[in-house]
Amino acid sequence: MTPLNGQWRLAARPVGLAKPSDWVYVEEPVPELADGQFLVRLEYLSLDPAMRGWMNEGRSYVPPVAIGEVMRAGGIGRVADSRHRDYAVGDQVHGVFGVQRFAISDGTGVTPVDTTLAPAPVHLGVLGTTGLTAYFGLLDIGRPEPGQTVVVSGAAGAVGSVAGQIARIKGCRVVGIAGGPEKCEWLTQELGFDAAIDYKRDDLRAQLREHTPDGVDVYFDNVGGEILDEVLRRLARGARVVICGAISQYNAEQPPKGPANYLQLLVMRASMTGFLVFDFAKRYPEGVAQLAGWLRSGDLRSREDVVCGDLHRFPEVFLMLFRGENTGKLVLQLVEDER
Amino acid sequence: MTPLNGQWRLAARPVGLAKPSDWVYVEEPVPELADGQFLVRLEYLSLDPAMRGWMNEGRSYVPPVAIGEVMRAGGIGRVADSRHRDYAVGDQVHGVFGVQRFAISDGTGVTPVDTTLAPAPVHLGVLGTTGLTAYFGLLDIGRPEPGQTVVVSGAAGAVGSVAGQIARIKGCRVVGIAGGPEKCEWLTQELGFDAAIDYKRDDLRAQLREHTPDGVDVYFDNVGGEILDEVLRRLARGARVVICGAISQYNAEQPPKGPANYLQLLVMRASMTGFLVFDFAKRYPEGVAQLAGWLRSGDLRSREDVVCGDLHRFPEVFLMLFRGENTGKLVLQLVEDER
Repeated sequence: MTPLNGQWRLAARPVGLAKPSDWVYVEEPVPELADGQFLVRLEYLSLDPAMRGWMNEGRSYVPPVAIGEVMRAGGIGRVADSRHRDYAVGDQVHGVFGVQRFAISDGTGVTPVDTTLAPAPVHLGVLGTTGLTAYFGLLDIGRPEPGQTVVVSGAAGAVGSVAGQIARIKGCRVVGIAGGPEKCEWLTQELGFDAAIDYKRDDLRAQLREHTPDGVDVYFDNVGGEILDEVLRRLARGARVVICGAISQYNAEQPPKGPANYLQLLVMRASMTGFLVFDFAKRYPEGVAQLAGWLRSGDLRSREDVVCGDLHRFPEVFLMLFRGENTGKLVLQLVEDER
Repeated sequence: MTPLNGQWRLAARPVGLAKPSDWVYVEEPVPELADGQFLVRLEYLSLDPAMRGWMNEGRSYVPPVAIGEVMRAGGIGRVADSRHRDYAVGDQVHGVFGVQRFAISDGTGVTPVDTTLAPAPVHLGVLGTTGLTAYFGLLDIGRPEPGQTVVVSGAAGAVGSVAGQIARIKGCRVVGIAGGPEKCEWLTQELGFDAAIDYKRDDLRAQLREHTPDGVDVYFDNVGGEILDEVLRRLARGARVVICGAISQYNAEQPPKGPANYLQLLVMRASMTGFLVFDFAKRYPEGVAQLAGWLRSGDLRSREDVVCGDLHRFPEVFLMLFRGENTGKLVLQLVEDER
């Protein structure tokens, strides 16, 4: 009765955009549990742009996924078997379980999921690392003040959509940059952004000028590249640029494009600061409480782009992130292998 | 008996490196003084890389020099005539008097020069805007702590040589980057830098690795370009990059090269911050007192690269800055026109 595990293991370091052959799909029986371990059957996989970076060799904030190792990913699942006194069969748990059907854990980094608060996917989105990244990045690094202008790129993405809403809640004028009219409409009509710029269609420079007449006090950047360069031109004096990510550069085959207008930092006495949400781990309870409160009050809307499918679909669903095909948090909900 | 003024006026917006024909030399009689004005005969001109930026059109921290306007420059001179009750003939004064033999002033932005403290050129260097830029940029923006590693580029230049020495005084390990063995020897032998890297000869990457084994906590950047990119690779966690200038980019005919490795800011939770010394104007007395104290105690050495010559030599002497020909503060001491 040993269940069969399915795993996506890293097979090659991608060049440019990751392709399905950069992983290999492996099936093997789940090993026996040792004392102090429990078995998790994965239900939801969190798909994040940062995962692309974990596939690269070299110095970063976490070690790269090794060739042959199960692809790293956050997820939510249910305890299916347990030899750990703190975890009982049926418990729903969150952890970095990897891209696989079953994970064995000793509880390190595992947290319970309180679905009375919100459905499971929300715990990967607004109430998970995604929401906390927006919360601490915008408030602690960006330090927006009421009445200031906040620009968010990747604004219809998981982190950007939350960062922009928090800025709105804090009384800022919020301008989102996203790709496509549907996303832009969602930002202004549903999420209460003051303006949205469709970088695929609009004249970005002209639109930024129009929507940030007093310049940009806080720029929350998820994309890098040309968009970062254009926003740098619009910085207000003392502006804070928050470097949360650079999705436009993650698949670059050349060295990434640096922000040519970085000397605007000097002209405008501005700063550009990187951060990682993990450094705020001690304050996660504060962040989750705030975010949950705003969800409850309706000030903050969560949106998950949940794709239901078999684990085999992982590579294809993951690539939606880099094609701009998701709106909000991209989640792969694992359903039974229909093959 | 009206004296004849000589002026270098801006004639064209330079493309790339400025050339003598970007200015025009004009002679005309000095106008009559009005009440509340005084006439300054310039003795020393301060030559600074930032002057190249003032020649460009477009948004910056000060308005560009207009075509036809006297080229902007700081300087020290002596009052030659006065209808201002606070200024008497013979007073030595500092101000932004421009590249000319005589300037008329109403006292705005003019400060007396106390040559009992140090000779006049030192007031353009360590005790002037140059030294204050190093002081506030390093201490307030860079915030180095004892034992930390501070890297300074343009380290043999006017600002860099002071910034590095202040870092040493504050108990940091100091690595300078400069062009040529003489400059490097000066940094380590005379100024007490722990190491100096000759970017023209050494393998910059290998040398940085060798001399910053624990990474770079503070990078005081005067040059931008490739050197900035290489130092970004070496950032320590929580590092502060101080953007003081980017002399490698001031004459670029293409858009400036942005720092391709800026995502190290994210990986290392680091910041890159621009500043302008003018924002610290209220604290200049504190800065000057500190710098003068260190000069007196011998902890800080000042070096001025004083070129004696006629005003006609201005374009040629100015270009020394961009050829890396000066060590320390470049000053043109005006002597009588020998023609």
